[in-house]
Amino acid sequence: MTIRKHDERVDDLHRKGYKIIQHPKKFCFGMDAVLLTGFIEVKENENVLDLGTGTGIIPILLEAKTKGRSFTGLEIQAESADMAKRSVAMNGLEHKVNIIQGDLKEAGQLFPLSSFDVIASNPPYMTIGKGLTNTFSPKAIARHEILCNLEDVINNASLLLKVGGRFYIVHRPQRLVQLMTLLTKYKLEPKRMRLVYPYRDKEPNMVLIEAVRHGRPMLKVEAPLIVYQEKNIYTDEIYDIYGYDKPNQVD
Amino acid sequence: MTIRKHDERVDDLHRKGYKIIQHPKKFCFGMDAVLLTGFIEVKENENVLDLGTGTGIIPILLEAKTKGRSFTGLEIQAESADMAKRSVAMNGLEHKVNIIQGDLKEAGQLFPLSSFDVIASNPPYMTIGKGLTNTFSPKAIARHEILCNLEDVINNASLLLKVGGRFYIVHRPQRLVQLMTLLTKYKLEPKRMRLVYPYRDKEPNMVLIEAVRHGRPMLKVEAPLIVYQEKNIYTDEIYDIYGYDKPNQVD
Repeated sequence: MTIRKHDERVDDLHRKGYKIIQHPKKFCFGMDAVLLTGFIEVKENENVLDLGTGTGIIPILLEAKTKGRSFTGLEIQAESADMAKRSVAMNGLEHKVNIIQGDLKEAGQLFPLSSFDVIASNPPYMTIGKGLTNTFSPKAIARHEILCNLEDVINNASLLLKVGGRFYIVHRPQRLVQLMTLLTKYKLEPKRMRLVYPYRDKEPNMVLIEAVRHGRPMLKVEAPLIVYQEKNIYTDEIYDIYGYDKPNQVD
Repeated sequence: MTIRKHDERVDDLHRKGYKIIQHPKKFCFGMDAVLLTGFIEVKENENVLDLGTGTGIIPILLEAKTKGRSFTGLEIQAESADMAKRSVAMNGLEHKVNIIQGDLKEAGQLFPLSSFDVIASNPPYMTIGKGLTNTFSPKAIARHEILCNLEDVINNASLLLKVGGRFYIVHRPQRLVQLMTLLTKYKLEPKRMRLVYPYRDKEPNMVLIEAVRHGRPMLKVEAPLIVYQEKNIYTDEIYDIYGYDKPNQVD
């Protein structure tokens, strides 16, 4: 099996020696996906689904970090699904991580209803019309709501989650109102929320949400997650989530 | 006119020499109200209404801080409405600040519909059943949803705001989902939000929201508002909002 194709690169994930294939011009994961895996809780033997898995970063990192039983990534773009499958194989994870090419809008036909304990998603953030959407490049599809929108993601997550199962999403704070109203519309009650601020005195640029299917209303907003303590220096928490050594660390 | 009654005290507001009457056992304003006045924008000649004004702290501070034309405070409890009226008189503000005793659930009969530019509220935070609600003390009424609930506040704010008018509310982050869903239900679109964190690494305990009647969906989440930089020392921003001198300040 060819591991790395032309123009692709292989990066170290700093977890159990795992690596991942990325394509700099087409499919790269962002900090968003990594921070989401730091926010998600997967308990022993739980079954996890990632809607719009891209490079497969979320199921691969969750396999490394948790004791879940199975990790499934659903991805509509053939090229990136293929890349994710090769990353899974490269790490020898075929028995636990399963990449499926398919449309999350048809997820109710692809998987049994109410069957997952945990569903994650790092969906396209931008609505159509807000950016270049006539060029349907792989990157545009990953970033803009071209092939699915936020309601599709939330509606299908609700269909596939067990009652009491947990949905995790990362998105832009600008969409928070819509996130809250769509989650409650589809009976996914937001229970935990954390805002990610690039610096401690700046506006947040990401929001992490955990919602429970048919959960009781009561949101816990967590302490701010600050990315940089100063220019080019991450906070300790970000180094921990990435699994990197801290620079100039004194042990 | 008797200014201060038995058991009441008069406190300095650090704004234009204004003072306010408080009753330590019955009616005191909290940091919540002060932070809300730091978040509210009132433009020149705008008409402002405060739903559930208590001591009158919000209209009095907004009169001091802004160029609004009129500031109305609606309060259901007779004793606290009387106290607020005496504070207004003590500061010589009867021509600009008007305290009205009445029920915000009947606000649509008390004021012309769609008549205010700005409406503020620091409503009771706690639902009934979460605390002692069989003792209807003045403090219990101010803190628990005994005489009105969040939907009453939002519904009546929407009735009385002009289209394009702004509604400002401070509440607990636990109620954020309900805030978002009720605001959008009554066509008050959340446009700005700020979370108040007691310390920079702690969970937030207040949320400030600006919503615009019939506004376009797009929320701006602002930088965190941190209250204490260390124990007993406020951050500079809090000293600014209160109008206090900073301790050990070097100019």
